[in-house]
Amino acid sequence: MTLRNRQWLLARRPDGLLQADDLTYRETELTPTPLEPGQIRIRNRVFQCAPTMRNWMEAEGSGPYPSIPIGAPIMAPAGAEVIESRHDSFPVGSRLSLIGSWQDYETLDPDRSASLQRLPETVDLIDALGRFGLNSLTAYFGMLRVAQPQKGQTVLVSGAAGSTGSIAAQIGMIMGCRVIGTAGGPEKCAWLTEELGLDGAIDYRTQNLPDALAQAAPDGIDIFFDNVGGPILQAAIANMRRLGCIVLCGQISGYNDVRGATASLDMMRLIYRSVRMQGFLMGDYRDEVEQAVEGLQNWSRAGRLQFRVDVREGFDDLPNNFNLLFSGANEGTLLNKI
Amino acid sequence: MTLRNRQWLLARRPDGLLQADDLTYRETELTPTPLEPGQIRIRNRVFQCAPTMRNWMEAEGSGPYPSIPIGAPIMAPAGAEVIESRHDSFPVGSRLSLIGSWQDYETLDPDRSASLQRLPETVDLIDALGRFGLNSLTAYFGMLRVAQPQKGQTVLVSGAAGSTGSIAAQIGMIMGCRVIGTAGGPEKCAWLTEELGLDGAIDYRTQNLPDALAQAAPDGIDIFFDNVGGPILQAAIANMRRLGCIVLCGQISGYNDVRGATASLDMMRLIYRSVRMQGFLMGDYRDEVEQAVEGLQNWSRAGRLQFRVDVREGFDDLPNNFNLLFSGANEGTLLNKI
Repeated sequence: MTLRNRQWLLARRPDGLLQADDLTYRETELTPTPLEPGQIRIRNRVFQCAPTMRNWMEAEGSGPYPSIPIGAPIMAPAGAEVIESRHDSFPVGSRLSLIGSWQDYETLDPDRSASLQRLPETVDLIDALGRFGLNSLTAYFGMLRVAQPQKGQTVLVSGAAGSTGSIAAQIGMIMGCRVIGTAGGPEKCAWLTEELGLDGAIDYRTQNLPDALAQAAPDGIDIFFDNVGGPILQAAIANMRRLGCIVLCGQISGYNDVRGATASLDMMRLIYRSVRMQGFLMGDYRDEVEQAVEGLQNWSRAGRLQFRVDVREGFDDLPNNFNLLFSGANEGTLLNKI
Repeated sequence: MTLRNRQWLLARRPDGLLQADDLTYRETELTPTPLEPGQIRIRNRVFQCAPTMRNWMEAEGSGPYPSIPIGAPIMAPAGAEVIESRHDSFPVGSRLSLIGSWQDYETLDPDRSASLQRLPETVDLIDALGRFGLNSLTAYFGMLRVAQPQKGQTVLVSGAAGSTGSIAAQIGMIMGCRVIGTAGGPEKCAWLTEELGLDGAIDYRTQNLPDALAQAAPDGIDIFFDNVGGPILQAAIANMRRLGCIVLCGQISGYNDVRGATASLDMMRLIYRSVRMQGFLMGDYRDEVEQAVEGLQNWSRAGRLQFRVDVREGFDDLPNNFNLLFSGANEGTLLNKI
């Protein structure tokens, strides 16, 4: 048996947006080596394009995140099928979610992969990476475990039309909060208020953030769920209420900046308003994932959560589709079938 | 009866350190007006020089803190005696702590002053503002309520030879933590390790902060109690452990900067390490003050807490003594008897 394995390899560290020359396309015919006991061979079927992957392309030591070595395939959240197995818990045909890489086939030891999870029969690969994937779980834990919204509070979500932000905003509404979102462009803003039913939307491309925020939340913000960072974080800090909470989920505004995602913050306001600002990762709540998926499924069935999953296709287009994240051209969780 | 009332008034907004021309000295012979029911007249006896007073000298709206009007006496934590009273709970001779102002006499309505507290007979004015005053209580609540240290954790305290920092550091040690402090100059550093028994001290004036920190806390920092901000906050963030906590107590490095205390922070590290950064004020725990004073008194009696109170004298020298805070020339809580 030979397998045709396509790969996108990191050729050099990108400067700003991912460019064609930053990657190398390679196609090989490989004769797979026999598996060791405990190993499995998988066929990747779908990748999620996640903003934080841009951080993973930085040099080792430039940040706290993992770094993809030069010459290695691009790491990415993936949905895959087991095609060969010497591990009893992962028989041929079982479906997985994992942090995989941009290639058709991989050989793994499931016991050594912290991210790898076998999917229940009821969840298909697209849902596992989309509706109930990383982004939705991140929104779930960020709102319910970090922010812990109370009825009647004012919640601001940046990147609210995005796949994490839109779920965070809707969970805020389910909890009885007044929810305002920021997004880029009138269509996204209209979607937030008219489709999702948010109490307000701010178009960061055309509106003056501090003014729009002061108007949308005249009594201040109790919870800021931040996916973006930079100017919106600064504007939000100026409007935080006493004992408010800033959930640090992402900083997409800084991911293509070689200086990294730094923000110059008014620290005295955090002190004088007794504001808690807290970073978190979905993995902090790994033990609660099953319960969270169930919660998301229940709200989804009850019609209280709308998901947007933007499914693209083609191995060749992976790099271009990835960049859609940073121009804001994707509509919800960006998946790429191969 | 006439009273000679000396005052230091704010003449203009300072730019950087407080200058002689920023203040006006005024001395008046005043014939006190009769008190209204519920009012008291007090004689200020001692002022605390607190770093955050520098923020209060900024223009209204430049920050979240109170702003001293131009022409008004400088606001300051004060210890005072009641010399005339039409309020049953504050008879003549009772002693108070309050946010007062740089003058000999004030007329107040205790029921409208949130900061005013009558002192128990067992605590004298110097102790009320010094050992068991604002700074010690701030350290107590910041460590025990915000950070909640666990035995065996590594704690970093900036401004550790200061009046708040030294108490925070000692509480860390009482809780069974490994405690490292930063301070300016070899004497202060020696005091931290030799007198207080800290596990390490970093001289921010002569040592390279990132290197010294990596060496002093090779496994990272669980709790950073920050009084200083700026470069030490940046260096600490680079060394925070997963699920660590940064207690935002003060930002003295920025108080004389017209741009205010802003810091450019590596937000991704806060996210990837799931770090909590939390501002707080002593007043958040107003209901627990009595219990906190008792706790501090008990540790003090048991010889587990050393306090440094630096008592200066003279109404004329108030402005100069205040500036000692920013050159680091004071040794502990800076009080000024008048």
